[in-house]
Amino acid sequence: MANPYDTGLDKNPANYQPLTPLVFLERAAAVHPDHAAIVHGGATIDYATFYRRSRQLASALQGRGIGAGDTVSVMLANTPAMLEAHYGVPMLGAVLHSINTRLDAGAIAFMLDHAETKVVIGDTEYGSVLKEALDLAEVKPLVIDYRDLECGVEGERLSNLDYEEFIADGDPEFAWQMPDDEWNALSLNYTSGTTGNPKGVVYHHRGAALMCYANTIATGMGQHPVYLWTLPMFHCNGWCFPWSISLVAGTHVCLRAVRAKPMFDAIADHKVTHLSGAPFVMAALLGATPEEKRDFDHRVAFNHAAAPPPAAVLAKMDEAGSS
Amino acid sequence: MANPYDTGLDKNPANYQPLTPLVFLERAAAVHPDHAAIVHGGATIDYATFYRRSRQLASALQGRGIGAGDTVSVMLANTPAMLEAHYGVPMLGAVLHSINTRLDAGAIAFMLDHAETKVVIGDTEYGSVLKEALDLAEVKPLVIDYRDLECGVEGERLSNLDYEEFIADGDPEFAWQMPDDEWNALSLNYTSGTTGNPKGVVYHHRGAALMCYANTIATGMGQHPVYLWTLPMFHCNGWCFPWSISLVAGTHVCLRAVRAKPMFDAIADHKVTHLSGAPFVMAALLGATPEEKRDFDHRVAFNHAAAPPPAAVLAKMDEAGSS
Repeated sequence: MANPYDTGLDKNPANYQPLTPLVFLERAAAVHPDHAAIVHGGATIDYATFYRRSRQLASALQGRGIGAGDTVSVMLANTPAMLEAHYGVPMLGAVLHSINTRLDAGAIAFMLDHAETKVVIGDTEYGSVLKEALDLAEVKPLVIDYRDLECGVEGERLSNLDYEEFIADGDPEFAWQMPDDEWNALSLNYTSGTTGNPKGVVYHHRGAALMCYANTIATGMGQHPVYLWTLPMFHCNGWCFPWSISLVAGTHVCLRAVRAKPMFDAIADHKVTHLSGAPFVMAALLGATPEEKRDFDHRVAFNHAAAPPPAAVLAKMDEAGSS
Repeated sequence: MANPYDTGLDKNPANYQPLTPLVFLERAAAVHPDHAAIVHGGATIDYATFYRRSRQLASALQGRGIGAGDTVSVMLANTPAMLEAHYGVPMLGAVLHSINTRLDAGAIAFMLDHAETKVVIGDTEYGSVLKEALDLAEVKPLVIDYRDLECGVEGERLSNLDYEEFIADGDPEFAWQMPDDEWNALSLNYTSGTTGNPKGVVYHHRGAALMCYANTIATGMGQHPVYLWTLPMFHCNGWCFPWSISLVAGTHVCLRAVRAKPMFDAIADHKVTHLSGAPFVMAALLGATPEEKRDFDHRVAFNHAAAPPPAAVLAKMDEAGSS
């Protein structure tokens, strides 16, 4: 018998609202423009500025001919530029490829070629290995240097194009485009190639948006969490937290390196509510010297992924103020 | 230029995981089988039982020939049967039509005919108006009586088919079907027809699932909230909270009537964390007599939808322990 609810219309019309995490930033900037989006060292970037800078990046990339289906590779630490790339690149329908900063030049060169990279944004700390990789690769992408003031080392410049100068040319009101299909590619990550050449894995806009809902619900984040970046954003796009935090207008606290003192300082100074990490992040916290430790009177949700840590480690984490 | 990420494959294959709120109950029953799903008077139903009873309802309806695209109408208070209908009916691809219990027989008869109703489940409290509506309507649905032990009035029986006996014949392990398309109809609601005949509005599975994510995030629900049913579930399917609560394995506290004393009792006895309602729910709480009021030492999130209440009402709600 005919289903009276079946109208015969295409239920996937082109004009439906595609699922994408990009709208989370747009909304956070509209509703909470003055709320701290990113803390990096002594600098704080509010949501209005975060959204503007992401659009500037998208606009500047478009000015260099980047568009739908192009790959933009980044080799960055957990910095504001890395967060901006998570929005600015897919705002063009381009695909963000985040490079594991611990890889050697050969593996990176393989990925750049396989991804048909058009642009590389590289932190100057990784300049020497990235230079070697670019020499090995067949692709000849546009190279942009990111010089992070919070980085202790000068690093190596590969280009006369500086990230801040590059985005300064971009339009902060750039009219970015929603994906025309929620199943379109959003980001590209590679395995580390321990059993052969690295294999690419693609997130689509729909999957990442749904992961953001799951992340915020599973970690019990309320509005305005403070999220400490101990997990590398190049690792599965930081489990989608670069996008998830915008959904609840939280604050990203950037951290270039996972060491005990800056972690304790961030937890105490910025009242970090959530962080993610593998067991060695717990080990770094528990192994801190008395001089490195700081007192704080709130609990921190530690979002953990790995084989379960030993009960003794979990008990010590509980004593140390984690839940 | 060709987009290297466009594989040419259909990005909406039939075998993708459709969005639907039905899986939230399946997961809650698997992960938290013993957690209280529904409290109704002195009875508590855990998640394993809630899921089993919903499947029994689906199975029993299928035994009467109900299937995809069929409408099942319910005229129920905020009771366990109403929650079970929100899962059991769409488990068959059938569509849940919830009738506003305040309507007259003429409006109800119009809806039953317009919806081409195959089954009506009616609380005996509404028996006389429902009987009149069924006499007026052209459709001749199967009628099932729901006799709620928490209801103070005996009501009128319309059928020799009792809800508890009806579902007792159903299979508690019934293999329900996911929707074959996430845009399929899930539920049907009608406007109250103040400017003409009532107009139908349909939720699809996708929209309801996304609303569940939004509800839990916007209200800051962590795991295991305790939700008091002051909002009628027939009203836009209780803003999708019958499904949302399963997403976070919360406890539904049923309430047949919005009166001050049972609300205060539920808040104090069951440690209610969240409720939703229009301004008159606030007014009922604030207007309680000292004998009706109860002390409690936790805060309750009041999820409000209407024109903003006056500042004085909000201030009094704050004093009374709402946020």
